[in-house]
Amino acid sequence: MTSPPQDSLHKTEFFRWQGPELELENARSLPEFTLAYQTYGQLNAAADNAILLCHALSGDAHVAGHHAEDQRLGWWDTMVGPGKAFDTSRYFVICSNVLGGCMGSTGPASPHPSDGRPYALRFPQVTIADMVRAQKHLVNALGIERLLAVSGGSMGGMQALAWARLFPDAVAGAIPIATAARHSAQSIAWNEIGRRAITGDPNWNGGDYYGEGVPQPEAGLAIARMVGHVTYLSEHSMEEKFGRRWQAEDGPAYTFEPEYAVESYLSYQADKFNQRFDANSYLYITRALDYFDFARWDGSDREAFACTQARFLFIAYSSDWLYPVRQNRELYEEARAAGVPAEFAEVDSSKGHDGFLIHTDDAAGPVSAFLRKLRS
Amino acid sequence: MTSPPQDSLHKTEFFRWQGPELELENARSLPEFTLAYQTYGQLNAAADNAILLCHALSGDAHVAGHHAEDQRLGWWDTMVGPGKAFDTSRYFVICSNVLGGCMGSTGPASPHPSDGRPYALRFPQVTIADMVRAQKHLVNALGIERLLAVSGGSMGGMQALAWARLFPDAVAGAIPIATAARHSAQSIAWNEIGRRAITGDPNWNGGDYYGEGVPQPEAGLAIARMVGHVTYLSEHSMEEKFGRRWQAEDGPAYTFEPEYAVESYLSYQADKFNQRFDANSYLYITRALDYFDFARWDGSDREAFACTQARFLFIAYSSDWLYPVRQNRELYEEARAAGVPAEFAEVDSSKGHDGFLIHTDDAAGPVSAFLRKLRS
Repeated sequence: MTSPPQDSLHKTEFFRWQGPELELENARSLPEFTLAYQTYGQLNAAADNAILLCHALSGDAHVAGHHAEDQRLGWWDTMVGPGKAFDTSRYFVICSNVLGGCMGSTGPASPHPSDGRPYALRFPQVTIADMVRAQKHLVNALGIERLLAVSGGSMGGMQALAWARLFPDAVAGAIPIATAARHSAQSIAWNEIGRRAITGDPNWNGGDYYGEGVPQPEAGLAIARMVGHVTYLSEHSMEEKFGRRWQAEDGPAYTFEPEYAVESYLSYQADKFNQRFDANSYLYITRALDYFDFARWDGSDREAFACTQARFLFIAYSSDWLYPVRQNRELYEEARAAGVPAEFAEVDSSKGHDGFLIHTDDAAGPVSAFLRKLRS
Repeated sequence: MTSPPQDSLHKTEFFRWQGPELELENARSLPEFTLAYQTYGQLNAAADNAILLCHALSGDAHVAGHHAEDQRLGWWDTMVGPGKAFDTSRYFVICSNVLGGCMGSTGPASPHPSDGRPYALRFPQVTIADMVRAQKHLVNALGIERLLAVSGGSMGGMQALAWARLFPDAVAGAIPIATAARHSAQSIAWNEIGRRAITGDPNWNGGDYYGEGVPQPEAGLAIARMVGHVTYLSEHSMEEKFGRRWQAEDGPAYTFEPEYAVESYLSYQADKFNQRFDANSYLYITRALDYFDFARWDGSDREAFACTQARFLFIAYSSDWLYPVRQNRELYEEARAAGVPAEFAEVDSSKGHDGFLIHTDDAAGPVSAFLRKLRS
């Protein structure tokens, strides 16, 4: 395997690690899998300063700094780096692209070992627990038996919950952020609309659209992204940012081209997403999100928490309507009811669900303090 | 023209009325137009007991009772009939399908007078004000100079606002329900996603999909309807009705067919909608909704109210997140600030925006009382 790299927030490439056969929750298996991952900071001699950060639906292993050929900063750059909440001068930070993803880890666009052609729909449905089990292999391969902490927002928070439940003795602290124990009917509905848009696009072609010059299901993935994007913003933040501003200076054209600035913005976001995301990965990962249920192994959230050995810090964002404060607070309350050491912080933010990526200042303090307590 | 029918909630057909050339807000005109309408109750000799009810995006003129060849009850049957809030033993109730619609009134599926082929995208963009101006012609043709009241929920509420502003001396009372003075950026976004889904469907074919055997943009309209449908429900009502119930008794199949009951439900609703609604009408009407701005003629809502001569009753539904209570209350407050006689009622309902169609019991009292005051 690739040896853990030296500390640098300027990476030249992702590391790739190939794991063994992986048994999956749905009674199938993957004969082999690769995880693309990135690390920041140094693993200490006792190997007890490692923190795993888990990304959300459209995220990847690039959590901080600049990478080669990627003009974007990492998705949590404000939280990860020397002196930041996840202080890379103290902690060894790992982030891997999820199983089922399309940013270097094995997913539906990866070659099937039997014929080298993309899995497409031959890819087995993976779950949040499968993603976490794959990460466990990687973490062990990096020489780490026990993580100081696992954290992430949104789907990353679900992974943190699954880690704490499935590998109790491998997690000292868990920081699930802007997440939920399970999807509500409404969250399932949004995801299903996105999936329907993709599978209803003739270019999706039953999932078989890989290859040079093959038309892509861009129209469908665009719709899916637009739906998702609106659920990540708050009504207030959209009003502030766009209101009813016309796209053209001279007002409406009375056509079905974008008339309002908010329409152009969504269209632009959808186009950008099409350039970097695989439609089949979108199908698989949204399914994993919908299937996730923290109580599935034990019957209730409380009993699930009773099976953990970690300390918890839950962080919710006030204007998040995808995973409202209420759903995060319920997690905290169930943890406490199970006798688990847990803290709860609500960050005041107008940015909706995306707040966890934007308004990180008010989360940094609680996270730093929580991590210091874990080491003491 | 067809003479006003006798009172009956068992109608055999819609009435159709053909109006003159209609100047439109966007500097175009319609050479002629037809409105499909229905009436209930009897117009009195003074012609001062007429109430116009305006339907929402997917509604039609069938507001109450049973009609021939339509198994459904009218969309506001609980509110319209003898002894009900809109008491057809006292009032003459009119409801017409909107201009741009597809339920008998002139819209994009109607024949263009020049060649008899469907307008399709040759249909001019109509606005809420245009819909209302067309209704005004119909109301006058029915022998009514002044309406006792105009009411409706959602887009119907916007029509009530436009009536009161554009024809001050023709409206004694206005009852806008579960509505807003204008769409927020978020509401525009939902509509735009629906439009993108339709226009991105290859079967939409630039709007030209009419005719026997021509494939319809059903996939696109289905997505649009699903998005709309979720915005009409509350998170709570979806949770109560579906929660995380599996569609199949034996649980998940790990495929991309509907897994959860809520997915099947949305799919079923989308299929039903495809059987009765024209995709181009969906484009035109959602645009009319987005363009609507009560302040557009006067610069502010307050000044718009100052131009009205009606009494107002605003009704909001507590769990409506498409047109939240706040937006309805703002209308009320601006009316009061303009010195207009206005009342406000908030109905406690868990049903989201759809509450105005379902939880009518608590709206009936305020409506009845308001109407009685108008006549006294």
